[in-house]
Amino acid sequence: MTSKDVTEADIQSNIPLVGRKPDQISTTVNVGDVELSEGKFVVIAGPCTIEGREMMLETGTSVKEAGASMIRGGAFKPLTFPYRNDKMFQLEEEGLKYLAESKQKTGLPVVTEILDVRDIELVAQYTDMMQVGARNMQNFPLLEELGKSGIPVLLKRHFGCGLRDWLGAAEYILYHGNPNVVLCERGITVPHTHQLTSRFIVDLEAVLAAKEWTHLPVIVDPSHATFKRAYVAPVARAALAIGADGIILDVHPVPEQAAVDPLQALGFEDFDNLMKQLRNIASVMEIEM
Amino acid sequence: MTSKDVTEADIQSNIPLVGRKPDQISTTVNVGDVELSEGKFVVIAGPCTIEGREMMLETGTSVKEAGASMIRGGAFKPLTFPYRNDKMFQLEEEGLKYLAESKQKTGLPVVTEILDVRDIELVAQYTDMMQVGARNMQNFPLLEELGKSGIPVLLKRHFGCGLRDWLGAAEYILYHGNPNVVLCERGITVPHTHQLTSRFIVDLEAVLAAKEWTHLPVIVDPSHATFKRAYVAPVARAALAIGADGIILDVHPVPEQAAVDPLQALGFEDFDNLMKQLRNIASVMEIEM
Amino acid sequence: MTSKDVTEADIQSNIPLVGRKPDQISTTVNVGDVELSEGKFVVIAGPCTIEGREMMLETGTSVKEAGASMIRGGAFKPLTFPYRNDKMFQLEEEGLKYLAESKQKTGLPVVTEILDVRDIELVAQYTDMMQVGARNMQNFPLLEELGKSGIPVLLKRHFGCGLRDWLGAAEYILYHGNPNVVLCERGITVPHTHQLTSRFIVDLEAVLAAKEWTHLPVIVDPSHATFKRAYVAPVARAALAIGADGIILDVHPVPEQAAVDPLQALGFEDFDNLMKQLRNIASVMEIEM
Amino acid sequence: MTSKDVTEADIQSNIPLVGRKPDQISTTVNVGDVELSEGKFVVIAGPCTIEGREMMLETGTSVKEAGASMIRGGAFKPLTFPYRNDKMFQLEEEGLKYLAESKQKTGLPVVTEILDVRDIELVAQYTDMMQVGARNMQNFPLLEELGKSGIPVLLKRHFGCGLRDWLGAAEYILYHGNPNVVLCERGITVPHTHQLTSRFIVDLEAVLAAKEWTHLPVIVDPSHATFKRAYVAPVARAALAIGADGIILDVHPVPEQAAVDPLQALGFEDFDNLMKQLRNIASVMEIEM
Repeated sequence: MTSKDVTEADIQSNIPLVGRKPDQISTTVNVGDVELSEGKFVVIAGPCTIEGREMMLETGTSVKEAGASMIRGGAFKPLTFPYRNDKMFQLEEEGLKYLAESKQKTGLPVVTEILDVRDIELVAQYTDMMQVGARNMQNFPLLEELGKSGIPVLLKRHFGCGLRDWLGAAEYILYHGNPNVVLCERGITVPHTHQLTSRFIVDLEAVLAAKEWTHLPVIVDPSHATFKRAYVAPVARAALAIGADGIILDVHPVPEQAAVDPLQALGFEDFDNLMKQLRNIASVMEIEM
Repeated sequence: MTSKDVTEADIQSNIPLVGRKPDQISTTVNVGDVELSEGKFVVIAGPCTIEGREMMLETGTSVKEAGASMIRGGAFKPLTFPYRNDKMFQLEEEGLKYLAESKQKTGLPVVTEILDVRDIELVAQYTDMMQVGARNMQNFPLLEELGKSGIPVLLKRHFGCGLRDWLGAAEYILYHGNPNVVLCERGITVPHTHQLTSRFIVDLEAVLAAKEWTHLPVIVDPSHATFKRAYVAPVARAALAIGADGIILDVHPVPEQAAVDPLQALGFEDFDNLMKQLRNIASVMEIEM
Repeated sequence: MTSKDVTEADIQSNIPLVGRKPDQISTTVNVGDVELSEGKFVVIAGPCTIEGREMMLETGTSVKEAGASMIRGGAFKPLTFPYRNDKMFQLEEEGLKYLAESKQKTGLPVVTEILDVRDIELVAQYTDMMQVGARNMQNFPLLEELGKSGIPVLLKRHFGCGLRDWLGAAEYILYHGNPNVVLCERGITVPHTHQLTSRFIVDLEAVLAAKEWTHLPVIVDPSHATFKRAYVAPVARAALAIGADGIILDVHPVPEQAAVDPLQALGFEDFDNLMKQLRNIASVMEIEM
Repeated sequence: MTSKDVTEADIQSNIPLVGRKPDQISTTVNVGDVELSEGKFVVIAGPCTIEGREMMLETGTSVKEAGASMIRGGAFKPLTFPYRNDKMFQLEEEGLKYLAESKQKTGLPVVTEILDVRDIELVAQYTDMMQVGARNMQNFPLLEELGKSGIPVLLKRHFGCGLRDWLGAAEYILYHGNPNVVLCERGITVPHTHQLTSRFIVDLEAVLAAKEWTHLPVIVDPSHATFKRAYVAPVARAALAIGADGIILDVHPVPEQAAVDPLQALGFEDFDNLMKQLRNIASVMEIEM
């Protein structure tokens, strides 16, 4: 009477590499010295966009001091419209160099977004992990080449896609030879809260579901999920409490002046306070942080 | 060019009673001896449906021992279809009597759902707080009469409605004279996780938004939001971590045999374990529980 | 691994009265002399809100001349907020009298919304069909009493509910003895078009699905589904072309000055033009109109 | 109090090329001899996947005879999972050759999907128009290169994206030098109908909105929007009735045996019947077809 829908068995048969087998223990993904794995809570922090050398180094040093395990920074940025004004930085290779310098200075591994399948080699020279943004989640040529590259991949969920599509995308990477995939929930679009709350809402049950369905680590991006500074710390705490394996978030020396998404980045002090809250909660939950 | 949409100012001018004024402190709603208020975390627990005297009393005693502050139990149940088999109890006034007996035995205040505007007087004899279910959120005659009654109201959000409709519904109750309203997020329908995760997803950012927009207490229902036993404890922890003022959840002596929603209730031991986790997290967050 | 979801068989077993059996022909619902049935296209038109005697009579006469088969008019109006200014009319029984007068003058049957289960007797004196608005779709006491009343019911779908809930609501009415139910799709909330297009979007595939699942007539409300005057005529044409059994829409003598929803009503001339378009399309589709 | 949302003015200032200026007439996009423009209704038909030479040629001939203006056929197919069984064809360049042969035989222009930015030159040798699938709607490197190529582009909307993202994607193509863009609505994911109706639902109001916001032609894909054979013809009629400039749909010699999406393709006879219905409706609407 209706269209036959996907069944759980259909999906499981299509994710032999990504799917969790009965009693299978969770996978640990190593990025430099950092272990993303169950029982730990990894914090990745840094500027959404690398706006210059000084701000990148300053932010890297500050988030390290506050206790972050990895540094993030964007050199290639997907923008909804093709117009970039003075404030919309995309430093490309120059930005990657600052990111690498920040890594050298702090000793922390770094992650940056890859947009173009033709840039993989270039970007691979500077980074320890490549982030596939929500909009590229089903860019299959990109997933294939990242699969072949072997470099750790942070695979964000598209804001309009469910678990089936997300796990299928991860399966592409593993199928092409790369087991080092970390899933990242970054918020979905829903009608029910639009405009009066935030642009997206974080789907924390997706973290639970993803951890049931796969053996891969799953983290949360409270910055893009909320798009609102005041919500970042509460959502970060909720991500830890619900059982995520980490978070990735935007930190900026002067958040109000951030080139992109100035509404969502945390300043250094706010980030430091958040880290203290997270360590307190992690300690009573017996999670290593 | 497009339809004029609602603006924040429009909404604020329509919720003079419910809306939070600048620097306004949060309201405390008293239900019996229990205070629902910011800085506290109240746990309301009990059977989704009151299936009999013994199970109601046993559950009430057990959740009290585990540390719950209030007892819930359903005597009138909204069902999607008009057919009630042997397992779909609706004890009506008989159930209300068992609930009242449970209150007497434990000393804890009780809450139960009201479905029909013509039943308010009857139900009011047995309960300390009336729950308006998601499906009745915009049943305006019911809201008006509850407003006139003065009894504390637990107002759940419809799974397909946003903040505007929710706050408007609360405003009806206050407008008709009753300031004792507690908001409750119970999950929304979204396309992105359907079938592979849970039937609804909990929108924890709605808790943050509701607490910004209003001065009323806001709690979370992890049982109906997840519809899945294994997700209840993680979502309950996340609700606490994000800043909700409490939770309401289903507890049943033998959850697998619950008459309604057997997939989501916690057993006594699971509930006791959850309470310990919550107390640990509350203590490091300096929240009274 | 996941929560067991509803299956089609589960639903079918719960809608023995509403569900379409193999080869079952569609039901005809008679409202006065009007037949709502497959192969016909019924147009119901009139003011969203009855603002006064003159405007009600003028509109009734005008929509009859343009070819409408039934007249609509609201005397009890659900409003999101409790505040009614000068422009938010709710004439209650006075409005019902004008509606009945319009019926007498034109000879067309009339439909009006029922909000409160306690008003059924009153409203039944003045109307040929009672409309259950989206917000009351799962107001089960109201559905039960309408089932007992036997009066034809126009059951709108909640903007946040799917087919299962909608059919379950219709089953309540039939179960309590009333086979005269017409379903009405009135738009759903979706994230994808919000703000830049219209407040709701019409789900025309729901018309197809509802007609597969049930034997009841299904009509569309292009006014509330679009909330935008310029979209009403195109959506009305699409409703006819996709196979709906009719439409219900807002017509007002001076639409820009309508007390409620001034953005969506059609003026008399626009309505007359639309009717001509519809008759042309109906004729080539061999649909009686 | 809440996150600042996008305003209409923000969007308009970001789509200087794609946005419709006051009184601007609609653009005509020429693909070979075919004009996609307001006042016409173009039908593009063919197999979802090119499964072999014979089926491609047979389908091309058949849809031409039935009155189609363009032929579609997929040689590169995005699949949710990396596994392709015997029935999941992807003939790549071989398929493109069959498509080109079909063009030669029928004289009709052809359209095919482009998945990889590195394949543009190859694909351009065989096709008159390149289709960007929903999943690549925000693959910005691909959009840029298609902008530079000048070849007509059929830009499908992502099933989880709204108008802002869709128009931004089109702006990329025009900004890089290519004015020949046709927008295509192909269904969105919504919670309200899932499972019991179809996998996606078509958002026909998006056609109205897109035509208000831009001067570009807008067509509809009833096959992927419904994912269900029985719904294709009704949705195609509705697309015409609401004012779309055309449709693109799946036709297959033996639809039940289609390699991909066997549930949605029309057979030759069904397609021929649909074309007759469409011509009848177009004639009374004074639309050229």
